[in-house]
Amino acid sequence: MIVGIIGGGQLARMLALAGIPLGLKFIFLDPAPDACAAVLGEHLCAGYDDRAALAYMAQTADCVSFEFENVPADTLISEVAGKVPLFPAPSALTLAQDRLQEKHLLQSLGIPIAAFEAVDSRADLERAVAKIGFPAVLKTRTLGYDGKGQAVLRRPGDLNRFWQQLGGAALVLEDFVAFESEVSIIAVRGRDGQAAFYPLAENTHHDGILHYSQSRPDHPLQALAEDYARLILERLDYVGVLAVEYFVVGGALLVNELAPRVHNSGHWTIEGARTSQFENHLRSILGLPLGSVAAVGYSGMVNFIGELPAMDQVLALPGVHLHVYGKQSRGGRKVGHATLCVADEQARQSGLKELFALAQGSAKPSFPGRNDRQAVPDSS
Amino acid sequence: MIVGIIGGGQLARMLALAGIPLGLKFIFLDPAPDACAAVLGEHLCAGYDDRAALAYMAQTADCVSFEFENVPADTLISEVAGKVPLFPAPSALTLAQDRLQEKHLLQSLGIPIAAFEAVDSRADLERAVAKIGFPAVLKTRTLGYDGKGQAVLRRPGDLNRFWQQLGGAALVLEDFVAFESEVSIIAVRGRDGQAAFYPLAENTHHDGILHYSQSRPDHPLQALAEDYARLILERLDYVGVLAVEYFVVGGALLVNELAPRVHNSGHWTIEGARTSQFENHLRSILGLPLGSVAAVGYSGMVNFIGELPAMDQVLALPGVHLHVYGKQSRGGRKVGHATLCVADEQARQSGLKELFALAQGSAKPSFPGRNDRQAVPDSS
Repeated sequence: MIVGIIGGGQLARMLALAGIPLGLKFIFLDPAPDACAAVLGEHLCAGYDDRAALAYMAQTADCVSFEFENVPADTLISEVAGKVPLFPAPSALTLAQDRLQEKHLLQSLGIPIAAFEAVDSRADLERAVAKIGFPAVLKTRTLGYDGKGQAVLRRPGDLNRFWQQLGGAALVLEDFVAFESEVSIIAVRGRDGQAAFYPLAENTHHDGILHYSQSRPDHPLQALAEDYARLILERLDYVGVLAVEYFVVGGALLVNELAPRVHNSGHWTIEGARTSQFENHLRSILGLPLGSVAAVGYSGMVNFIGELPAMDQVLALPGVHLHVYGKQSRGGRKVGHATLCVADEQARQSGLKELFALAQGSAKPSFPGRNDRQAVPDSS
Repeated sequence: MIVGIIGGGQLARMLALAGIPLGLKFIFLDPAPDACAAVLGEHLCAGYDDRAALAYMAQTADCVSFEFENVPADTLISEVAGKVPLFPAPSALTLAQDRLQEKHLLQSLGIPIAAFEAVDSRADLERAVAKIGFPAVLKTRTLGYDGKGQAVLRRPGDLNRFWQQLGGAALVLEDFVAFESEVSIIAVRGRDGQAAFYPLAENTHHDGILHYSQSRPDHPLQALAEDYARLILERLDYVGVLAVEYFVVGGALLVNELAPRVHNSGHWTIEGARTSQFENHLRSILGLPLGSVAAVGYSGMVNFIGELPAMDQVLALPGVHLHVYGKQSRGGRKVGHATLCVADEQARQSGLKELFALAQGSAKPSFPGRNDRQAVPDSS
C-alpha cells in the first residue's frame, strides 16, 4: 500500500518511520530538494500546487494525506479529492487555513474561544480595538505558524505600526488571553467514526515556537478537552489526527487553534504512548483499527531549535530518545527533538532540566519556562 | 554518520528504522536485488565476499556491523577491519560460525553446555554415539540456522541415513537435551565495556524456527543468564548486541548457541522495552551511551512465517503492533512479526492466542506450543 504525503518535512518523515513497519510505502510532494522525508520514499520535487505532481500522486498512491495545513486546498480538491482517498478531507484544511472560519466553526459548536473581531481595514482595526481593548493580538487569517504573522497590541500607538506590518492581509484581532497554561489534545478519528484521545500535553512556547511538552494523563480538564475535540471531529466528519490547542484560564478551556495533522505537541507519543500519533494517523486514514493511546510513564518532549545538542550527552540521560530530522541547521528551525519517558514526576523534571541545559542554538529556553507564547516583541 | 551493515534483510531493516531517528544513514551489502532493507539506505548489490563492495563500504561508512553470522570472516577482516570501526569484532563472527569453536570457548569459561563430540568421519560418528548415546543431535559445524543442517539420531539405523545427508561437512554430535523450556538473553556491551542485559525471553520453536517469544522480567534464572553472558562478552571484548540461547533443564541453564547480532528473540523489545535491541546495538557500536533495557508491561512476539495475516485483524488486537519486512511471501520464510505489549499476564496469553489464530501460512503454530525445537522429522 502506498501513502502520498503532501509535504516532506519532519512530520512526513516520522509518519514514514511509523508506516514502514506496517508495510507501507510513501510518496512525498515537497518543493525542497533536500526535504528530510525524501530518504524514506519517492520524492516529487515540485510545488504544492503542481497539478502534474498531484495527479501523479493521486494515480500512484492508495491514500493521500498532508503534513501541514498551508497546502493550496483548491488544487488538492481538483487534482486529488475524488480520485483517491484523501484524509483529512479538504474541508478541514480550508477551515484551518483561515482563523476566522475556524473561529466561526468553534462558536457554532458552543466551544469557548477568546473574543475576536475580523479586521479587513484600518477602520475595522480601530473598531475592533475599541471592542476588545488592550492588550490584543493581531493575527493574519491565513498562513500563520510558529508565531509568525502575529503581533501584540498594547497601546494606541501600536495600531499604526502593526497595521503597516500586517495590514496587507486579511486579519483578525483577538483578546489577549492571560492564560495559566497551554495544553493540547491529540485526537484521532477513524474512517468508521471511532475516536480516541491522547492524554493532554502541557506545552510551553517561546517566541511563538513550541519548546517543550509534557504529558498530563491525570489533567482535570482531560474530559472537557475531549468533549470539545469530539464536537469538532464529528462536525467535520474528520478522519486522521487533529490537534486542538487550548488555553487554560480559571479552570476552563479556550480553544487557541486547530491543526488538521500530526502535531509537534504529540511527539512525546512516539515513546510515551502505546501507539504514536504517527502510527494512529496512518491507521485512521487507511481504515485500520486504532491503537491504544494510553500513556506509558511520565513523558516529555524538548524541541531542538537551530542546532542539535551533542548526541552522546543527550543519549546519556536516562529515559531519553533522540529524534533527528536530517535537516540543515539554521537559526529558528526545528532540527530535532528529544523525548523523555521515565517512571515518576521527579525524574521527568530533572530530565527536562538536563535536556534544556544541553539544548544549544539560537533559542535556548529557560526552565521552568514562562508561558510566553504571545510575548512577541513589545512595541516599546 | 553512516553505518554499513553486511546483510540487507529484516534485521538490517529494523536497525535502520531505529537508526534513522538518531540521524544515521545506512549502506547495506546484500546480493539480493530485492533486499528488504534497501529502501532505507544505499544498497550495494554484491556478494558478501565482494572485495570492491566491502572496500567501498569501509571507505564510506563511519562504522560497520553485520546482521547475520555467515559472512565470510576473512574478507571482512582483510577489507574492513582496521580501516573503519567494525563491531562486533570478526573474532566473534569466526566463533559463531563454528559450533565446535563456540563450544570450546563456553567450556573454557566454565559455562554449562550439552555433552558434545566433534565428528569428522563415519568412525568419529560411531565413537561419538557410543559416548553420548541416543537420542543425540547431529549438526553441521558451520552455516546452520533456523534448524537447518541438523538431525536427531534416535537409533543405530539413523547413523547411515544422516551420515549420507550431512556427512560431507564437519559435524558435531550433541546430547539431545530434554529441556523444560528455552530462554534467551539479549546482552549489549558498549565500546566502554559497560554491559546491559534485557529481561529473559522464553522462546518456542517449531521445526527449528522461532515461533514466539515472551518477555520474562521476573525469571528466576535471570541473574545466572546474565552471569554467563557477561563472561562471554568480556572474554571476547565484545561490542554490540549478543544473543545467548539457553535450554532450561532442572533449574539450570545450558547454553544452546550464540548469535553475535540482533536476534529474533529480541524483537519484543521494539515496543516491550524502554530501548529496543536495534537502537542499543547502534548506540553500542557507535560508542554512545546505552539506553534502558527495562521491560514495559508484558510482552510477546509472534513470527509470521510464509505469509502475513490480515493486517486489519492483527491491528484490531489490543496492544499489538505489526512489523512487516517487505519481503516476498514464500513458504518457511519469516515475512513479519507482531509484538504484543499489555498490562498483565492474562491479557498476554489471550492476545497471543488470538495472534496465533490469525497467523496464516505454511507453519501455523499450535498454542500452547510444545517446545519441539529439536523434534526434526523422526527417522522412523
